[in-house]
This record gives sequence, structure tokens and C-alpha cells, in this order.
Amino acid sequence: MVATPAWPPKSAPRLFVPGPLAEGTSVSLEGGQAHYLGKVMRAGPGDAVILCDDKTGEWLAEVSAAAKRDVTLSVVRRLRGREAVPDFWLCAALIKKDRFDLVLEKATELGVAAVRPVLTRRCVADKLNPERARAIVTEAAEQCARTALPGLAEPVKLDALLRDWPEERRLYFADEEGGAPASEAFAAHDGPAALLVGPEGGFDDAERAAIRAHPAAVAITLGPRILRAETAAIAGTVLWMGMRGDWNAAAT
Amino acid sequence: MVATPAWPPKSAPRLFVPGPLAEGTSVSLEGGQAHYLGKVMRAGPGDAVILCDDKTGEWLAEVSAAAKRDVTLSVVRRLRGREAVPDFWLCAALIKKDRFDLVLEKATELGVAAVRPVLTRRCVADKLNPERARAIVTEAAEQCARTALPGLAEPVKLDALLRDWPEERRLYFADEEGGAPASEAFAAHDGPAALLVGPEGGFDDAERAAIRAHPAAVAITLGPRILRAETAAIAGTVLWMGMRGDWNAAAT
Repeated sequence: MVATPAWPPKSAPRLFVPGPLAEGTSVSLEGGQAHYLGKVMRAGPGDAVILCDDKTGEWLAEVSAAAKRDVTLSVVRRLRGREAVPDFWLCAALIKKDRFDLVLEKATELGVAAVRPVLTRRCVADKLNPERARAIVTEAAEQCARTALPGLAEPVKLDALLRDWPEERRLYFADEEGGAPASEAFAAHDGPAALLVGPEGGFDDAERAAIRAHPAAVAITLGPRILRAETAAIAGTVLWMGMRGDWNAAAT
Repeated sequence: MVATPAWPPKSAPRLFVPGPLAEGTSVSLEGGQAHYLGKVMRAGPGDAVILCDDKTGEWLAEVSAAAKRDVTLSVVRRLRGREAVPDFWLCAALIKKDRFDLVLEKATELGVAAVRPVLTRRCVADKLNPERARAIVTEAAEQCARTALPGLAEPVKLDALLRDWPEERRLYFADEEGGAPASEAFAAHDGPAALLVGPEGGFDDAERAAIRAHPAAVAITLGPRILRAETAAIAGTVLWMGMRGDWNAAAT
């Protein structure tokens, strides 16, 4: 039997903080994070907290003082370096707020490197609250024990996305009018990739033509059923992660 | 150019009705469905409606009369037979209501044959409202243009599920402690399959041991991150459907 470390406990709270974190430094938390630790998790002096800074990895910290409005932690030691992130972007058209929240949460859990919200002609939403989006992504990363936050870009118009597309990155395009089965397309190509998914109602004809004409684009299909926009975003991401991401690597 | 039929329009409302449907028959709708057609979709005499009965397939119908509380339709002709459904069950532990609703909706969109809710020791929920669950599944099927509803079983305890398991059906078990990468396991086996996913907090040790000891069970992993229960259910379903379901078939 190998002795398994009982410390930190599996249930220790996880938080992203600005950092950079280093051994022996002290971290002060206020506002929502202090409330979460002190009131929700009832953490007191000596309790373990896992901190991440999206730069140096994951650290064990201990509560040194817990007052009503602020909690102070001291950083004990590094547990893991920042994870390697599969090179996959999710370029998802903005959709209704609650459905886009789901895309942000699931994309983070599934391990994407970046979410790039896209504006298309049939988008009913044209704004994304960056603080709100950042909070959803951060909470999802804490939940799934990621040590890296996905990048979160400003919403960009489709024509600008295509114009500035990095040529070495494959752009899988979930085309409702049909394309290669996603699993075949993903099996056939290794390297940086992205998935482009339209809004409810899809891309219009001019948009579809522009995407299909792009040299990096490969039209794919996600099966014979009509998937909701957020389902297509999640499904394409799952399939790429399962086949080309890090789901095949040995757990670390 | 091939002329495309303008009738029924793509935006025609879709509804599941008890049936069985047949050409020339008349269908009366009341309650929520009448309200949806008359008030939400503002359907009037002559408007096209797509009807499915989960038995005979998909039919074109036309509104013959629309009153305040009931709408009458006449069935014109069959558009498609009932779809072939990939032989995949999702056996998902009951979780919080809103999260299980998401599982029901996404499993339907993704094309499962059946959802079998499972009761385990760490389940915080032990009941599923069957009407509510049926409504979610039906609405999702209408949304994604399925002509078959997934089966929806009563919640069953894990030990009963394992005891009565049909021996020819592979039972993929999303094991947080590790297993074969899901894509490898799915690539290695063709035939009837099911995915078993635990609740938040996972299966306990005795449950894990019982599952692993089952001759039909194959432990799989869905990557290095900790997925929420509903994310694991959706992700495992996507990956099986994308690799082994009907996502590779030519669109019909």
C-alpha cells in the first residue's frame, strides 16, 4: 500500500486568485471569496485551501486569520504546475444569456483553451458581460480542478474572426447543411483546432458561403438531429476533446 | 437545380400526439398543445403542423379549426417513418432537479434510446416527477425533430439495475478513479451499449466494487478534469453517439 496524503483533504475549497503565488507569501481575500470561505465553507485558522493563479499552478495554503470581511491565507507549497491545455478554441455565436452561460461552464469543464464569442447576423444577443462571463468560467475551473483558466475573448464579428484567422489552426464548422462526420474529420487531423458554432437559426447563406470559402474551414456534421446551438457547441467540444484532446492521456 | 418543396415550411410547429396517426384522420388538441398552436404560434386554418406519434413516424397535418381552447387538425400525409434509434441507454444517477432536466433534454437531442434514472447512496434526490420528465423529453424531441421519443424508465436502485442487466449490453461505467479512455473503449466494441454515471460525489466504494465486478461493465475515463455529474452524462453520450451512434451515417 502506498500511503496517500490526507492533506489537503479532497474537500478543501479551491479558489483562483490574482497571484503570482509563491511559497511563504500571504494572500488576503475580501468580498465574495472571503464570504465563501468564511461563511459558506466555514473555514477557520489552520484549514487548508487550494489556490490557483492561472500562472504558476496550484498551491496548498492555510487560513491564518478569518475575520468578518476578510480572510488571510499563507501559501505553504506548490501541489502541481499549471496544466498543459489542449489547443482547442470554441468559437460560439452569442445566444440567450442562460444558454451561453451553459456553454461557458461546460467548455471550461471540458478543457478548452479559449472561448471566443462570435457575432453573426442571426444573433439575438450582441453583448457579453465580461465580469459575469469571467465569474462563470472561474467557478467552473474551480469546480473541475483546472489549474488554468480558458481565455475569454471579447465578442468578435464573424467577418473579423475569419479575416484574422491564424492559418495553421483548423476551423471546424458545424454546418447544419451537412459536412464530414465530426469523428472522421477529427480523426484525420492533428494540430491546433477550433470549432465554430452558429446561433439558434444557424448562419445565413452569405455567412455559410464565407466560412466554407475560408482555407482553414472544414464543414462537419454532428449527426442527423437538429441540435440546439449550445448543444452543438458542447457536443463538438466533447468529441474533439475525447478524440484529440487530453482524454486519452494517462491521468496525472 | 432541384426544386425544394416549400411545404411544409421549415418553421412549421412540431408536436407529439398519442396517435396512431393515419392519412385522413382528425386530431383534436386541448390544453397546453392547443394554447401553443393557437396563441404562441398563432396557427390558423390551413396552416401546416408536423405531428409525430412515436409509432408511425412523422406526418404533415393542417389546422382545420382553431378555437380558444381546442385546435383540430387533419392529417394529410406521412413525411417520414419512425427513425431508427441507436441502441444506447443513459443510466444516470438522479441529481438536483435542474441538472437532471438538462440531462433529459440533452440525452434526447443527442439521440439516446432510453434514459434510466438510477438511485445510488449519494443521490440527494430520490424521486422523479414522471409527467415533468416526459414533458421535457417530448419538448426536446420536438425541438430536434426526432420522430421517436426516448424511453423513460422509473428510477431504479443501482443493485436492481445491475442484477437485471441484459447480458449482451455493454455497461460503460464513468469511473472517477480511472479506466480506459472512453474513445478507446468505444472504438473497441460494437453492439448495444449503456453509460452509467454517478451522482455529484460519485459512487461509494461498495457501489464501485459492485459495478466493476459486473461482467458487462467496462470502466472508462472522460479525461483528467472533474466533470459535474450532468456533464459526464452528456459527454459520455456525445462520444458514444459520435463514434458508435448514427452521427457517421449519411444524413437522411
